[in-house]
Amino acid sequence: MNRRPVVKIDLDGAGPRRRPDDLAAEEPLEIRLRGEPLAVTMRTPGQDIDLAMGFLLTEGIIRTQEDVVTAQLCAGTDAPNTYNVVEVVLGAHVPPPVTDPSRTFYTTSSCGVCGKASIDAVRTRSPFDLGADRSAVAARTLAELPDKLRAAQRTFARTGGLHAAGLFTAEGNLVVLREDVGRHNAVDKVVGWALREGRLPLAGHVLLVSGRASFELTQKAWMAGIPLLAAVSAPSTLAAELADEAGMTLVGFLRGRSMNVYTGTERVTV
Amino acid sequence: MNRRPVVKIDLDGAGPRRRPDDLAAEEPLEIRLRGEPLAVTMRTPGQDIDLAMGFLLTEGIIRTQEDVVTAQLCAGTDAPNTYNVVEVVLGAHVPPPVTDPSRTFYTTSSCGVCGKASIDAVRTRSPFDLGADRSAVAARTLAELPDKLRAAQRTFARTGGLHAAGLFTAEGNLVVLREDVGRHNAVDKVVGWALREGRLPLAGHVLLVSGRASFELTQKAWMAGIPLLAAVSAPSTLAAELADEAGMTLVGFLRGRSMNVYTGTERVTV
Repeated sequence: MNRRPVVKIDLDGAGPRRRPDDLAAEEPLEIRLRGEPLAVTMRTPGQDIDLAMGFLLTEGIIRTQEDVVTAQLCAGTDAPNTYNVVEVVLGAHVPPPVTDPSRTFYTTSSCGVCGKASIDAVRTRSPFDLGADRSAVAARTLAELPDKLRAAQRTFARTGGLHAAGLFTAEGNLVVLREDVGRHNAVDKVVGWALREGRLPLAGHVLLVSGRASFELTQKAWMAGIPLLAAVSAPSTLAAELADEAGMTLVGFLRGRSMNVYTGTERVTV
Repeated sequence: MNRRPVVKIDLDGAGPRRRPDDLAAEEPLEIRLRGEPLAVTMRTPGQDIDLAMGFLLTEGIIRTQEDVVTAQLCAGTDAPNTYNVVEVVLGAHVPPPVTDPSRTFYTTSSCGVCGKASIDAVRTRSPFDLGADRSAVAARTLAELPDKLRAAQRTFARTGGLHAAGLFTAEGNLVVLREDVGRHNAVDKVVGWALREGRLPLAGHVLLVSGRASFELTQKAWMAGIPLLAAVSAPSTLAAELADEAGMTLVGFLRGRSMNVYTGTERVTV
């Protein structure tokens, strides 16, 4: 978080006022495998090792903590705010990732990239069968989660610029909260934390995200073995299709006392 | 947009009701250069050629319409909804892009990736000097833009799941609106449209985005020569730093009758 001067204009108030304002920090993080760049993501600095671990897991590059020999922030000689590289060494038994730009999708040589193929690609990689997860969550418990998430988001209240991902138990207790300028990063930080804590798969847990539920976030939840993904805003078609395929419960528009249950309705009890 | 059955739960209403719901369509789009995959983005189908053109321009791969020989949706033999490939042929004079995963950043061999280097990389590529753009916009005109954007977003009202980007004149007239499940895609579709219409650089225009202003969106606005970027929500630190460097006006929290002006305050008249 950084302070910057800002000119505040209120057409119904007095004239423009100049004052300091808190902005959410955004910096690039490069993830390297044995010195080779794998990916760059624009993220809020903090929990960078968790972010890298969560990314590697949800992209299907690693499956367990044992797949990673070392993961450390590259300690350069520059100022602290340029420590934006996580250097990872994978075990010799881990197949190197395919780094072609369409790597997360099954692609044919003609026009074959499509939503169905994307779903197939995730299914091939996910080690967890969510259909076997018999956990259930009360609708009234779900309805309380957004307020709990916001209450825990002290940073959000100051900058208004951070997406949040919160992991809850089926009883509605917050396990861990992560925030980031990128919603996918917030989820990767949660998943990386759970991996490091030896908690995967996250059976019987609920993941709540502050925005929409996209295909990408649904993929990440599946790869972490989370049976219920809830979003404050709308899901996309492909998110709902992937959740259906995964046996995951997908809840959208979780606001106030109401919600939409798109898939896996048997896990939500009224 | 697709209909799916959904179970609606309202804890203050009657029991759960099953009814159809509209979801925003999300499908992968692969952009290929002479048959080689360059990038895959999850997007809302529609205006795919504009999306590909806008992506190529804002990533600094092309500079004018003349850099592109052909751009067409790959016409496979599959069902229409799998037409998810745009095949582009660039002119022989266009240098092929560097497709290493950290391609948008200046990277050293040690720990050199940082926000400042990211800004330098964009500055090297952007062909437009926004500091020379003397246009001005009245604060009261800016305050009216979010309502105009929402009024034009008929789709948004139905699914609640789409990000919007609207291009306006300095007088507040809507020039073009694009929506997408990905905010960067909505901006690329606007920029690709403007490129195809021969309107670049977009001097004297305002780009309004429905969410936050990130580094990535600020980069895209700069690459299109847009002097004023306005966001309904918060900017990040790096977005403000890049806008400052570009000579761009950055407005955030444009809500109701108030707004924050982070950079380029001289273009906003009260």
